[in-house]
Amino acid sequence: MTFSITILGSSSALPTSQRFPSAHVLNARERLFLIDCAEGTQIQLRRYKAKFSRIDSIFISHLHGDHVLGLVGLISTLNLLGRNKELTIYAHAPLEPILRQNINFFVDELMFPIRFISLDTKRSKVIYQQGDIVVESIPLKHRIASNGFIIREIVKYPNIKKELIEKYSIPLAEINRIKQGGDFETPEGRIIPHEVLTYYASLPRSYAYCSDTRFFEKLAPMVEGVDILYHEATFGNDMEKMAKATGHSTAAQAATIAKMAGAKKLIIGHFSSRYKDVSVLVEQARAIFPETYPANDGDVFDIPIKKGY
Amino acid sequence: MTFSITILGSSSALPTSQRFPSAHVLNARERLFLIDCAEGTQIQLRRYKAKFSRIDSIFISHLHGDHVLGLVGLISTLNLLGRNKELTIYAHAPLEPILRQNINFFVDELMFPIRFISLDTKRSKVIYQQGDIVVESIPLKHRIASNGFIIREIVKYPNIKKELIEKYSIPLAEINRIKQGGDFETPEGRIIPHEVLTYYASLPRSYAYCSDTRFFEKLAPMVEGVDILYHEATFGNDMEKMAKATGHSTAAQAATIAKMAGAKKLIIGHFSSRYKDVSVLVEQARAIFPETYPANDGDVFDIPIKKGY
Repeated sequence: MTFSITILGSSSALPTSQRFPSAHVLNARERLFLIDCAEGTQIQLRRYKAKFSRIDSIFISHLHGDHVLGLVGLISTLNLLGRNKELTIYAHAPLEPILRQNINFFVDELMFPIRFISLDTKRSKVIYQQGDIVVESIPLKHRIASNGFIIREIVKYPNIKKELIEKYSIPLAEINRIKQGGDFETPEGRIIPHEVLTYYASLPRSYAYCSDTRFFEKLAPMVEGVDILYHEATFGNDMEKMAKATGHSTAAQAATIAKMAGAKKLIIGHFSSRYKDVSVLVEQARAIFPETYPANDGDVFDIPIKKGY
Repeated sequence: MTFSITILGSSSALPTSQRFPSAHVLNARERLFLIDCAEGTQIQLRRYKAKFSRIDSIFISHLHGDHVLGLVGLISTLNLLGRNKELTIYAHAPLEPILRQNINFFVDELMFPIRFISLDTKRSKVIYQQGDIVVESIPLKHRIASNGFIIREIVKYPNIKKELIEKYSIPLAEINRIKQGGDFETPEGRIIPHEVLTYYASLPRSYAYCSDTRFFEKLAPMVEGVDILYHEATFGNDMEKMAKATGHSTAAQAATIAKMAGAKKLIIGHFSSRYKDVSVLVEQARAIFPETYPANDGDVFDIPIKKGY
C-alpha cells in the first residue's frame, strides 16, 4: 500500500543541468497523482519509471510556464500510448481554452476525454474523492492565483476485532452498524461500546504541496499535521525582501510553516538557479525545523504504513 | 572557427529515458543555429553547455509537437537571462499566432522582439544570409508541410598570395578587384590571371538537416555534396510500408539519399521508441553508406576546417 512522492523537478523558473522545473508525482496505492507539469515532466516520469497508464489526475498549482509547459507533450504521449480513459486536470479556469487550443494544434487525434475542474482561489475545498483518497485544494499567495494541494488517505471505517465477534456472539447483520459507530447490546442487555469492538489497521497518510507562495501564517493550520509538507524555498534567508517582492518564500519561512503546522517532515524545493549547492538552504531551514530535506530530481519520499490503534 | 553539430534530441514522438525528442544545435563560428526545438531543448542546451546568448536563429522543420513544444520554455528562459536582441524563428506560417498567444499567456513581459519568417513549402530557398553563413530551406515530404535546412559557410573572396603582391608590385588599390575575379596587368602589359594570384584558405563546410520526411529521390540533388547529412531513419528496413504510411524513412532509405547525394557523412536519428538498441538501424544504413553514425543525445559532430587550394 504505497504512499510515496517522487520529485520530477525541483528548480524554479530557470532549470539547471541538475534540476528540471516543478513537478511531483504521488503514488497513492498505485494511483498516480501528478502535481504540476513543467516542461520535461514526461521525460522525468519515464526516467524514474512511473507507469503512464496509472496517471489518475493532474493538479496544476498556478499558470506560470515553469509549472505547466509539459502538459501538451505529456497528453500527446498518453495519446500515443493508447490511453482511452478520461483525464481530469484541476487548474485555474484560464488554462482550459489555451490548453485545448494547443492540443488541437499539436496533438494528432486525441483519443481520450479531458475534463477540467476549476480551482477555488478563495478557500480550502475538497476537489477529489475516490476510494480511499481525498484531495483538498488550498489557497496560496503568489503574484497570480496559486493553490496548494493536500492528498490524504481516508480510512472510512475501522475493522471489527474477530475475537470479540466470537466472545459476544455478534450477529453478522450487526457488523456494519458497529463499524459505522453503533454500540452493541448483548442478549443480556450489556452495552459494549463500538470503540472496544473495533480497531484501525492503519492511520491515514497525507502529503501537502505548497508552491508557489509567499510566507503567510494562515497556511499553517490548513496543512496541520501532514506527514510530509512540500513548501517552496526559492531563496535563502538573506533574500527575504526579494522573496516577498516576487511572491516566494525563504528557507526559514518554509520551516516556520512546517513547525507551526506540526508537519512530520518538510521538503523544500523550487530553488533559484543561483544556488549551485542548496545545502545552505537546508541548513537554514533545519535551524527551525530539523526534519527538513531538499527536493532533488529523482528523490523518492516514502511514507510507510502507520500502525493503527 | 568551429562548425559542429550537437544532438539535443534523437527520439521520434515518444521520448525515452535515453532520448529527448528532436533538436539539434549547430555552432557555426560561435553563432548558434537551433534546428527544431522539442520539449526539453532548453534543458539539453544547458546540459551540453551551449551559450544561450549565442543563439542566433531558430529553424522549425514542421509543426508536430515533438519538434516544437520546447519553444515557449526556451523563450521564457532567454527572457529571464536578459536577452534583448531580436530572435528570428523560421517556421511554417500557422505557428506564429499560436506561439505568440502562448508567449503572451505563459511568459512574463517579453523583453526582446521575435520575428517570424514563413517557410516556402514548394521550393528550395535561401532564407538566411549573414556574414559567412547561408541557410537554405528545402521542401521535404511528410504528412504535413515539412522543410529541411542546409547551413553552409560561404567563402566570399579568396586571399591574395602575399609573395606575388611583392613579386608583381601589385598596388593596394588593386587587391579587392583581383579578389573579386579581376586579372592583373603588370606595367609591362603582362596579364596575370586572378586564379594564379589568389588562394582559398579553407573550403566552405555544410550541414543538412532532413526530418521528418518520407523517402524521395529528388531530395538527393538538393543536399548534394554536404559534409554531414542528417536524415531521419525512424524505422528499420522491415518497416518500409509503415514508414511510407506515416511519412517517415527507413535506415536504408536515409543511406540511399546520402549515397546519391555524395554526402561525406550520414547521421541517422528520430528513432522510433521500439528500438532500444539502434545499432541494427546503423548496420542497415552502413550496408549502403558506410559513413553512417547514429544520433545520440549529447553527441557532437565536428566538421574540421577543410584546407583550401
